Amino acid sequence: MRAADIMTRTVITISPDHSVRHAAQLMLDNHISGLPVCDDEGVLVGMLSEGDLLRRAELGSAALGKKETSSPTQVAEAYIKGHGWRVDDVMTRGSLTVGTDAPVGQIAELMAKRAIKRVPVIRDGRIVGIVSRRDILELIAAAEPERFAAGDEAIKCAVLARLASDLGLDRNVIEVRVDRGVVTLCGTVESGVKRLAARVAAEAVDGVGCVRNELRVAHETERASPKPKP
Amino acid sequence: MRAADIMTRTVITISPDHSVRHAAQLMLDNHISGLPVCDDEGVLVGMLSEGDLLRRAELGSAALGKKETSSPTQVAEAYIKGHGWRVDDVMTRGSLTVGTDAPVGQIAELMAKRAIKRVPVIRDGRIVGIVSRRDILELIAAAEPERFAAGDEAIKCAVLARLASDLGLDRNVIEVRVDRGVVTLCGTVESGVKRLAARVAAEAVDGVGCVRNELRVAHETERASPKPKP
Repeated sequence: MRAADIMTRTVITISPDHSVRHAAQLMLDNHISGLPVCDDEGVLVGMLSEGDLLRRAELGSAALGKKETSSPTQVAEAYIKGHGWRVDDVMTRGSLTVGTDAPVGQIAELMAKRAIKRVPVIRDGRIVGIVSRRDILELIAAAEPERFAAGDEAIKCAVLARLASDLGLDRNVIEVRVDRGVVTLCGTVESGVKRLAARVAAEAVDGVGCVRNELRVAHETERASPKPKP
Repeated sequence: MRAADIMTRTVITISPDHSVRHAAQLMLDNHISGLPVCDDEGVLVGMLSEGDLLRRAELGSAALGKKETSSPTQVAEAYIKGHGWRVDDVMTRGSLTVGTDAPVGQIAELMAKRAIKRVPVIRDGRIVGIVSRRDILELIAAAEPERFAAGDEAIKCAVLARLASDLGLDRNVIEVRVDRGVVTLCGTVESGVKRLAARVAAEAVDGVGCVRNELRVAHETERASPKPKP
């Protein structure tokens, strides 16, 4: 799955010369939380998002972010962002973009790492779409687990394989029993969080009805931190 | 304006035992980007937001955030968040909350500082509403500038007063001329960004038609960084 497969193709953009108020209304009307800012030639010059509008004179929050350590330049910049009425004064300059071929997983990781909500999709220097977190969410909501009739023995093999591949646990340290789809995990792992991860790994195997987690944690001290789950 | 004045009163919550897929669908159906997670007694135990769903097995991004410096515990935690199918495994535990009397400016500043999109509003330990960035945006879209018929002399006084109070510039360093609503700023300021801030301050005065910014910057070196605007 790539950017072109999930992107929204109708992209609402705004001019740097428009008013902040108009931009806010445009976001509200279209149920979006940010806008690419394009100049008269359609070239992307920045992004205006809800985050750019949180420290504003209208809210009485323009000066709240001011620290005692702020330099005169930072104070003046915050003033411009808090009081400017033109998009140009308030937007975040520049923008990360992706090509139409960018894999969805990479886009999601980019959003996570850079804490951004949307990425314009560019082809030949022009915006052809935008991928938002909402587009990513749709993939998760649509992800249908592949269900197939699996006997207890097949489930056991699948759970053991997953514990080995995903968590590096093999049948020397963990015993897996399966009775009519109910999986029981026994043995010892080195931490509470690994115990939890083993349950998650077993639950993700197709055909598993429920998981009884009887794994023990090797060191009691580590067991205390993340609360073990049934 | 306080939390109670702008909060959304119908709060959609989810149980920690629900599936991640169900949660994603709930967010899509209701055009929201995050859900308070409440236990059977209605007690808030965490938040599930789009950000929690960016590093997921369904997207192929579960392991992309993994660094070589990650500890075994961090790797296991990322595995749980990327593969767990229950909200409980994936949500962010705990949540910042505000009371119904919290001023909107403070809430906006909290959102900016902590990079959060929504804050549950609590009264007597129960969720009574939620304030999202969208609620903040509505205030900005609705903020009507107070317009009044102001003569050139009144505008001049107002601009000078604002330059002094907001930026610490007084009539000894800046000359303000007003001709039929058109404001011209002359004089010298110490940096390019302060020059820009002076324009923003003048533009924000009621009755100002347009601002001609003829301010000079004292030191050429500082002038270079933020590009001066007309």
